[in-house]
Amino acid sequence: MSLMDDLRAEARAAPESGIIAIRKHGQNRSGLIPLWVGESDLPTPDFISRAAAQALLAGETFYTAQAGISELREALARYTERHFAQPSRPGEFVVTGSGMQAIQMAINAIAGAGDEVIYLAPSWPNIVAALGIAGIRPRGVDLTYSTGAWELDLDKLSSAITPSTRAMFLNSPSNPTGWAADAATLRSVLDLARRHGLWIIADEIYSLFYYAGKRAPSFMDIMDPEDRIIFVNTFSKNWAMTGWRIGWVRIHPDIAGVFENLVQYSTSGVAQFMQRGAVAALNEGDPFIAEQVDRCNSARDMFCARLMETGRVELAVPQGAFYLFFSIDGVDDSLKAACRIVDDTAVGLAPGMAFGSTFSSSFRVCFNRRRDHLETSATRLAEWIAAL
Amino acid sequence: MSLMDDLRAEARAAPESGIIAIRKHGQNRSGLIPLWVGESDLPTPDFISRAAAQALLAGETFYTAQAGISELREALARYTERHFAQPSRPGEFVVTGSGMQAIQMAINAIAGAGDEVIYLAPSWPNIVAALGIAGIRPRGVDLTYSTGAWELDLDKLSSAITPSTRAMFLNSPSNPTGWAADAATLRSVLDLARRHGLWIIADEIYSLFYYAGKRAPSFMDIMDPEDRIIFVNTFSKNWAMTGWRIGWVRIHPDIAGVFENLVQYSTSGVAQFMQRGAVAALNEGDPFIAEQVDRCNSARDMFCARLMETGRVELAVPQGAFYLFFSIDGVDDSLKAACRIVDDTAVGLAPGMAFGSTFSSSFRVCFNRRRDHLETSATRLAEWIAAL
Repeated sequence: MSLMDDLRAEARAAPESGIIAIRKHGQNRSGLIPLWVGESDLPTPDFISRAAAQALLAGETFYTAQAGISELREALARYTERHFAQPSRPGEFVVTGSGMQAIQMAINAIAGAGDEVIYLAPSWPNIVAALGIAGIRPRGVDLTYSTGAWELDLDKLSSAITPSTRAMFLNSPSNPTGWAADAATLRSVLDLARRHGLWIIADEIYSLFYYAGKRAPSFMDIMDPEDRIIFVNTFSKNWAMTGWRIGWVRIHPDIAGVFENLVQYSTSGVAQFMQRGAVAALNEGDPFIAEQVDRCNSARDMFCARLMETGRVELAVPQGAFYLFFSIDGVDDSLKAACRIVDDTAVGLAPGMAFGSTFSSSFRVCFNRRRDHLETSATRLAEWIAAL
Repeated sequence: MSLMDDLRAEARAAPESGIIAIRKHGQNRSGLIPLWVGESDLPTPDFISRAAAQALLAGETFYTAQAGISELREALARYTERHFAQPSRPGEFVVTGSGMQAIQMAINAIAGAGDEVIYLAPSWPNIVAALGIAGIRPRGVDLTYSTGAWELDLDKLSSAITPSTRAMFLNSPSNPTGWAADAATLRSVLDLARRHGLWIIADEIYSLFYYAGKRAPSFMDIMDPEDRIIFVNTFSKNWAMTGWRIGWVRIHPDIAGVFENLVQYSTSGVAQFMQRGAVAALNEGDPFIAEQVDRCNSARDMFCARLMETGRVELAVPQGAFYLFFSIDGVDDSLKAACRIVDDTAVGLAPGMAFGSTFSSSFRVCFNRRRDHLETSATRLAEWIAAL
């Protein structure tokens, strides 16, 4: 028996990211504009990096509070009050080593082998993979696309619930579609959760990347404190800190101790000097977020318009987040097409199969990037489509 | 049903660290010398922190290679060759967000709900808790203490194996006992693993903190490349980087891809700027390790001698690591006694119950600390014992 055969089946089954294939294909393409990754092209703002570097050089290199330093939990409470009009207390927050870890912890807190968790597709692939590693059956419910809009079919969602269902994972605004649940939809999902005694894992990390108002509707607007909702969040997108690996959960303070233990027994906390950077981000970073959202808003309009002008693209204008999910008339295999697009145009798109098997004819673009790169990409893509 | 009742049982059951109670008791004791934590009192050396701070300020803040940057994996290979005389390749190393996460990943890679993993007790508590969260039954095998030495009873180890056993976790040199397995013991454990088709999780993080030679015996000395051994490691102890949360696994390159995926779906990598610090640690940190080991060696001798002079202390002189595990004649409840010792002497000891229920009359001291603090502590403790 090979070493590989003797690993746990669920670990062996964890898939490579679905954009690895295209990235490998494109890695040596000179002049490539990589729109396939989910991150801004801006480095972390200097005031954030400096706060962390100073703490590091000052010797803040010892074990720290596993739930996060109190300054950071206080800053998280103020941030939540400021943007979500929610009275918040530091005890509702536990700092995590990335939004991904926040998700892993949320999963481990509420479900285990043999349980089921529902998620909406197309979906950021990591949630499905993390469920699989935990021995949990992921049950995808496809969003419905019609006439330029995505929608959540609540009947479909409801019929996906089985006696084994423990939770619904809801990412809104959504990566990759840009769909954002409206208040009525959130209310229906919450009603469903209450009726069936399910948890909600609320991934609202793109809340402030919202183009029809100051922020997207949130479960915070409608929930009671006792509702079974775990908010998972990250510093990655709002403050261009993808490389830092720092995030947080917001939960009822009664169960914060459990999350603290889950931190202890997985990574035992986040570097204190990084937490100093995160405090600076929360306290001084609102203008940076606003600039990014502005940039994304106009990039979205430009990119959508260019593609629509071809007359051969199907898309829903994203309501939030910073991705455009689209398909091209006559193109069925988007991985194959994405490879050709790399070769022909040096533009890197993520193939839809990365976000769910039923979306293998779609493409995802990240438009939180430099305007000139986006203009060039949109032009080249439009030309490529026109020449099909 | 309360929110707490509706969490997954295994998550709810994750215990608070066993030294929390004593730390809470002692937190306001003025002048306290805290010997209860497992870390040096030295901050991270400046050349390491500077390397990380420079990378951070230079904008290395984007997503990075999830297995670790190639410079770091190469430096790990050279470190391993240098200290363990092992031909090593970068592809054998995957960088993790702490030694704790290395353990969590090792567990997830090989065992799941219903499986059993054997560990030696007394034990660093986190391994047992991490197994529990994964739904795995931990089976402790107590080391045997007699006449100033700890020993592993191989028959006891062998009889702990059941059809559900997937792995043996072996920490040598050991936290908290300082026991280090000799080459013959390692060979017997490896034979047992081979015979039963078990994995070994080898926690040799204190290898270089060894007082009878340059380093402790290692599975690397006797294994074949195809043996089922996962080495978990950390930057915390060797380079005084406890607060950083960075570690690594060394595995056969055939299964490195699985670990890469486990990183992706838990924390998605370690900050690249932190990895630059880790590269500096590996490449330039040998003298710092040697200084620490020297300091620990003489601290160990002093502390053991002072306690032995009381005539009322039972201990095994630690062969490695930087902890002393001892008991005091007539003291049964070490948590209660540790509280009194805090009150009476302002010395903070970790109670033995934190390391296993059968060790509730023992104490653990960390002696990787300033000499004057250790002298003061040893003197006060000896006086306290004499006055019993």
